[in-house]
Amino acid sequence: MTLDALTDEVLARCEVLGGISEERGRLTRTFLCPQFRAVHEHLAVWMADAGLRVRMDAAGNTIGQSKPRSNRSRIFLVGSHVDTVPDAGKFDGILGVVLGIAAAKLLSDRTFSRRLDVIAFSEEEGVRFRTPYLGSLAVCGKLEAGHLAARDATGAAVSEAIRQFGLDPAELPLAAYPPKRVAGYLETHIEQGPVLESLDLSLGFVPAIMGQTRAWLTFTGQAGHAGTSPMLLRRDALAAGAAFVSSVERVGRATEGLRATVGSLTVLPNVGNVIPGEVKLSLDVRHANDEIREQAVAQLHAEARALAKERRLTLHLKRTLEQAATACDAGLTARLARVMEEHGHRAVPVVSGAGHDAVIMAGLCPVAMLFLRSPGGVSHHPSECVRREDVKAALIVMTTFLERELTG
Amino acid sequence: MTLDALTDEVLARCEVLGGISEERGRLTRTFLCPQFRAVHEHLAVWMADAGLRVRMDAAGNTIGQSKPRSNRSRIFLVGSHVDTVPDAGKFDGILGVVLGIAAAKLLSDRTFSRRLDVIAFSEEEGVRFRTPYLGSLAVCGKLEAGHLAARDATGAAVSEAIRQFGLDPAELPLAAYPPKRVAGYLETHIEQGPVLESLDLSLGFVPAIMGQTRAWLTFTGQAGHAGTSPMLLRRDALAAGAAFVSSVERVGRATEGLRATVGSLTVLPNVGNVIPGEVKLSLDVRHANDEIREQAVAQLHAEARALAKERRLTLHLKRTLEQAATACDAGLTARLARVMEEHGHRAVPVVSGAGHDAVIMAGLCPVAMLFLRSPGGVSHHPSECVRREDVKAALIVMTTFLERELTG
Repeated sequence: MTLDALTDEVLARCEVLGGISEERGRLTRTFLCPQFRAVHEHLAVWMADAGLRVRMDAAGNTIGQSKPRSNRSRIFLVGSHVDTVPDAGKFDGILGVVLGIAAAKLLSDRTFSRRLDVIAFSEEEGVRFRTPYLGSLAVCGKLEAGHLAARDATGAAVSEAIRQFGLDPAELPLAAYPPKRVAGYLETHIEQGPVLESLDLSLGFVPAIMGQTRAWLTFTGQAGHAGTSPMLLRRDALAAGAAFVSSVERVGRATEGLRATVGSLTVLPNVGNVIPGEVKLSLDVRHANDEIREQAVAQLHAEARALAKERRLTLHLKRTLEQAATACDAGLTARLARVMEEHGHRAVPVVSGAGHDAVIMAGLCPVAMLFLRSPGGVSHHPSECVRREDVKAALIVMTTFLERELTG
Repeated sequence: MTLDALTDEVLARCEVLGGISEERGRLTRTFLCPQFRAVHEHLAVWMADAGLRVRMDAAGNTIGQSKPRSNRSRIFLVGSHVDTVPDAGKFDGILGVVLGIAAAKLLSDRTFSRRLDVIAFSEEEGVRFRTPYLGSLAVCGKLEAGHLAARDATGAAVSEAIRQFGLDPAELPLAAYPPKRVAGYLETHIEQGPVLESLDLSLGFVPAIMGQTRAWLTFTGQAGHAGTSPMLLRRDALAAGAAFVSSVERVGRATEGLRATVGSLTVLPNVGNVIPGEVKLSLDVRHANDEIREQAVAQLHAEARALAKERRLTLHLKRTLEQAATACDAGLTARLARVMEEHGHRAVPVVSGAGHDAVIMAGLCPVAMLFLRSPGGVSHHPSECVRREDVKAALIVMTTFLERELTG
């Protein structure tokens, strides 16, 4: 099969999986919904066609294994996830899985010293159980009782969902790869942001996945009549909240590589002629360097306190997430970058601002990530797309890279 | 009856009317709701007790007239409104009516060259029909077909509400006072703001009622992933909206006597890890001088355009209200201020940032307004209150003032 035909096949397979949804009229496919069976059946056919032996583990991950030279061969993993957010696009996660199968197919007539496993993780988005990474946690042997006890909107626990799908939670330990046997993990994913497009590049490598702080801030002042309260006698919660939003933008812009966002802001009572008495807003701060992120959060917290004090408001701050940054493996990533350059690509680092299965897999083995340009920077939306030329470029780079890693 | 006893009676009557509500557990009394009949019955008893002859006009206004020296006597009006906002306090509007009756009672054993009419306007807040001032518009002969066609939440028009209450819309023209016969109008009202309290004063006179501009601004950018979008590639609608809120506060503080408020701000999609794609916010600008207000609005509009341009956003601005300022009558107000000083009060002007029946009445006759301190600056809220000493002071000032105006 030519590279062009294989590229078209990859795109056609994304369309096929994009049509399998638990909701009518839009793509939503959460962990172990009944439609996962159809996804597995397609993957099984495509994996077998690529010469892989197919199995599903107890966490619902679909795995295709190449024929190893020996039973003690080390294993190189390639994969991504096949669950989606609600009203998703067709490429987030899925593309990395389908590209992995296509690369395996290109390499299927050869035998390597290492085994290639293509993994379709069953869960990454954290939609159904508000707990992300269930698939990769199982593969890393890190799925704990706490994860299994998480409940979905119907009250069903993860373990019940597994049983209901016909799998056995008791077999979850068997899903874990022995760390010593795993040589590395490659995840190919759409960038979901505008960086590669702004640089006019098809591909980028990921040096690190940013750490995150998420928090909620509440400024409380005094609601009052917009007509009868002189400016200097006000305790306007929105005036402070708005100044804080500007602080977040300023600190974000002033700190190289920082992403700082107020995505949500809610005003009480939110009436045109009433001075806002309370404002609740979200803070999302990300950076590849945990110290820089923590410093930015501390500075913003101090600015929020000062803004509240200036206007005689009270401030409440609650941190809801602290996630350390994940470095991709330097050696593996350097080898990926070299392959990119050999194929005529500028090897540009694009730090990932979003979480990926690679965050969890980094606890098991060296990881590397390859990003494809996201036209318009759009993701988590039906209009999410990829360029055919970028998919072809990724397939070539992945195949060369895997060929070398499998040779070991 | 002593002044102290009369003051207690005024406060007790506010309690009585504050207990008449169309909602259980909170005070809400909109135009011509069934509970208006009980209000009228109480007012009728109290007005009769003050020597006034009671009638209800076709707009539901309850009016008590003193006995005039002749049928051609000119008339001096004192009053306020007896409808309320939802979940109201007990003094907004009501206090001015009850104080008018108390002053009439103090003057009831004397005959003046002018007639005193105490008016309880049936509608000022604009709650039921989203059209304010229905009572005073009728008294001024300015209730038009457009007002009568306004419909409430049940679809009933003003004219139907009048008929359903047992009144006859055909008699509305009779509610209008002939302008030549009206010598003036005094409205006593709680300040609903913090100015008098901050000056430690019981009373203030109102030189003018501010004009208002109200508008809605929408900034539209591009929603995006908070993790994957670098700061400089964003088109963050909230960053612009927040900077605009700060502009409004800055212009408000920099312009003597200006009130500038963003009371409502709504973010789309309003999710913590998504860059805001759209922000809609309200603008409320008030000043006693129309030119200064219009200048401030023009400056803020220009700043909003600049903020949108800086961040490659679109801006939509829609003005929903343009209301000119109302000057109280200079002569009448000077006489009111003189009475205040004679009774030992510092006569301080407090421009009204809220609308009042006096705005409409100013089209009929010279108007003056007396403000009472609002503890905590609170109004349109169950915790709205007044100090007994301020009520007594208002009663004394009103009585002296009316005594002189009735002598003419």
